[in-house]
Amino acid sequence: MTNSKIIYLDNNATTKVDEKVLEEMLPYFSQNYGNPSSIYEFGGRNSNAIKEAREKIKDFFNASSSKEIIFTASGSESANTAIRGILSADPSKNHLITTKVEHPCVLNLHKQLEKEGFNVTYIGVNSAGEINPDEIYDAVTDKTALVSCMYANNETGTIFPVEEIAQKVKSKNKQTKVFVDAVQAAGKVKLDVKNTEIDMMGISGHKFHAPKGIGALYVKSSTLISPLVIGGHQENGKRAGTENVPFIVGIAEAAQIAKDALPQEETYVKRLRDKLETGILSKIYNARLNSSSRNRVPNTTNIGFEYVEGELILLNMDEYGICASSGSACTSGSLDPSHVLKAMGIPFTALHGSIRFSLSRYTTEEEIDYTIEKMPQIIEKLTKISPFQKELTELKRRKGLI
Amino acid sequence: MTNSKIIYLDNNATTKVDEKVLEEMLPYFSQNYGNPSSIYEFGGRNSNAIKEAREKIKDFFNASSSKEIIFTASGSESANTAIRGILSADPSKNHLITTKVEHPCVLNLHKQLEKEGFNVTYIGVNSAGEINPDEIYDAVTDKTALVSCMYANNETGTIFPVEEIAQKVKSKNKQTKVFVDAVQAAGKVKLDVKNTEIDMMGISGHKFHAPKGIGALYVKSSTLISPLVIGGHQENGKRAGTENVPFIVGIAEAAQIAKDALPQEETYVKRLRDKLETGILSKIYNARLNSSSRNRVPNTTNIGFEYVEGELILLNMDEYGICASSGSACTSGSLDPSHVLKAMGIPFTALHGSIRFSLSRYTTEEEIDYTIEKMPQIIEKLTKISPFQKELTELKRRKGLI
Repeated sequence: MTNSKIIYLDNNATTKVDEKVLEEMLPYFSQNYGNPSSIYEFGGRNSNAIKEAREKIKDFFNASSSKEIIFTASGSESANTAIRGILSADPSKNHLITTKVEHPCVLNLHKQLEKEGFNVTYIGVNSAGEINPDEIYDAVTDKTALVSCMYANNETGTIFPVEEIAQKVKSKNKQTKVFVDAVQAAGKVKLDVKNTEIDMMGISGHKFHAPKGIGALYVKSSTLISPLVIGGHQENGKRAGTENVPFIVGIAEAAQIAKDALPQEETYVKRLRDKLETGILSKIYNARLNSSSRNRVPNTTNIGFEYVEGELILLNMDEYGICASSGSACTSGSLDPSHVLKAMGIPFTALHGSIRFSLSRYTTEEEIDYTIEKMPQIIEKLTKISPFQKELTELKRRKGLI
Repeated sequence: MTNSKIIYLDNNATTKVDEKVLEEMLPYFSQNYGNPSSIYEFGGRNSNAIKEAREKIKDFFNASSSKEIIFTASGSESANTAIRGILSADPSKNHLITTKVEHPCVLNLHKQLEKEGFNVTYIGVNSAGEINPDEIYDAVTDKTALVSCMYANNETGTIFPVEEIAQKVKSKNKQTKVFVDAVQAAGKVKLDVKNTEIDMMGISGHKFHAPKGIGALYVKSSTLISPLVIGGHQENGKRAGTENVPFIVGIAEAAQIAKDALPQEETYVKRLRDKLETGILSKIYNARLNSSSRNRVPNTTNIGFEYVEGELILLNMDEYGICASSGSACTSGSLDPSHVLKAMGIPFTALHGSIRFSLSRYTTEEEIDYTIEKMPQIIEKLTKISPFQKELTELKRRKGLI
């Protein structure tokens, strides 16, 4: 990186901790450090801090009771706790349903569960990355223990109709449980589990300006799960381990701020995202929008640059200090193209050159203008050295540019 | 608490975060917040921070390679990862061995595993809380998948001869794996897995002045485990979830400081502990030392106050701002007496009135003097209202005080 200024457009990978969140957490490291389980007041005050935080997270989910909230260490742990927890609590059913575009923490867990003897149905998506709830309905049988479906896709931002899906699942089999991985929805759209058929919903703090290393899981009070981490009585017996008091305080503060800032997502963030999207698509002839779904979180756009290699694009963007990603951070390091884009049927020509831009309320207009200015230069340079010159000429011809 | 000054003698429950540790962590919240898995430099620098931290933790265990280190969210997660990880990786053996005095994260997990069909042998301790390695040797069969034994007991501080135990286990069955829960040993005695037969060792940061919510697990490179949390590629595929960069940096810094401060534990901390122990035992006739083991971590003493109720003692100590505990924080809230003291055969008369004092290098001489001054007043007051006056008179007579 030659540029010292960072243009951070990778907020679906992780976010900056809000300064207010950091401030709220600080007293719990070296001052109020007592163990919340302790009998003395110095510990008890931390137990109160957790209690208040649990209330705030309850409000964030719009759950009925703070007893329905379990703090975890990550979105991945939330998903693993929910899925394993249901299967351990009731081992009588051996069928699971999920989608082809889930985050690895859901997808890879299901692959493991197949090895352990479970049957899994993987539901596909259309070319806009959208799911058809009826396909899930059709897949539910009397053996279906659980349906796991994300709320918003991390790569495309496409929002799934999770309430409708849950309702359809229950209309077919009341006993089937529904887990929603809301990691990429939290802080971007309003969460509201009340009056829904959703049994469990997981979130991760670091996607909405709390630190990495804290998550939460909503579990409807009538839904029984066994703990993933067994030991002490913490989290109402559902997750052992001394509570991470500062981060619990932090995720609650971040949730409250995010809830209050939701209108900003729909206006400020969405406007900048749309400006970026339109800017890039209008200026770069070999750019194509990978998810055109109208139902998208306001901060995300996924753009394919045809006949150009994604990693090269990212490295060149990095030279200008612009951070974005191809695929999800959790699958990076792998040279395989994104399983999400593959499931959408994105053509091979764009699959390897797809970039996800994800904004936050900290993104500025100047940063977006700068990115719109630099991206055409980067893509033009890389397009010139692409081995697919014949195809690129053909593309230009099709677009009426030559 | 009427006293605003806290005398914190509950360092086995949790510790204050070292100011230097906090300082090292701070830049990773709102400044260097990139996802370590990201391709750009802003993420990559965090990947480097983790790499350096892993080296430091490797040194803390004196392991052979930093690839043998997995970061987790707690000591409980380390133990669950180790135990479940071994059983999932090789489901061919169905026998487990552990001790009756383990932390709940090991003990309750074994109880759960019994429900799942495993056979568990629970090894007892003598009246000093010590274990006989030969008893473990005798229990090992060709079906034994794993032996789990703590390094130092959280309640009494008794150190177990884990290297000898591991050596004996392997001499009987080379395929049996050995997990050592070193949560209460870390920072108090030197850890050194090199040239031992120990396969796995778990620690928890908040027991040695790193924050709550971070742990580590050493897994010998030849030992295969399956991940507890499945998902992304993080931690070499052994633990999914975006890395908690600040806390990983924090636990590494705390480990380095703790390693350098070890001599202080053996001199300064031990001297204060011994002073406290002697002071209380000499001034209070119905006080008895629960673990007289010569092999104890330097910071811990567990003292039984006969015919007095432990919770009452703690509440009265709290009035003076003195923090200590009965049993472990992870079992608090339960009115059952400590499973550790019960396993030691501590008489009923002292079982309910046993208090663990655990010091740290932050404990001052003044705090110890204050505690030695206040404890006799507290115990005298409570002894007067004990319903066991006849027994107390008999105790006085036996001690030649009347």
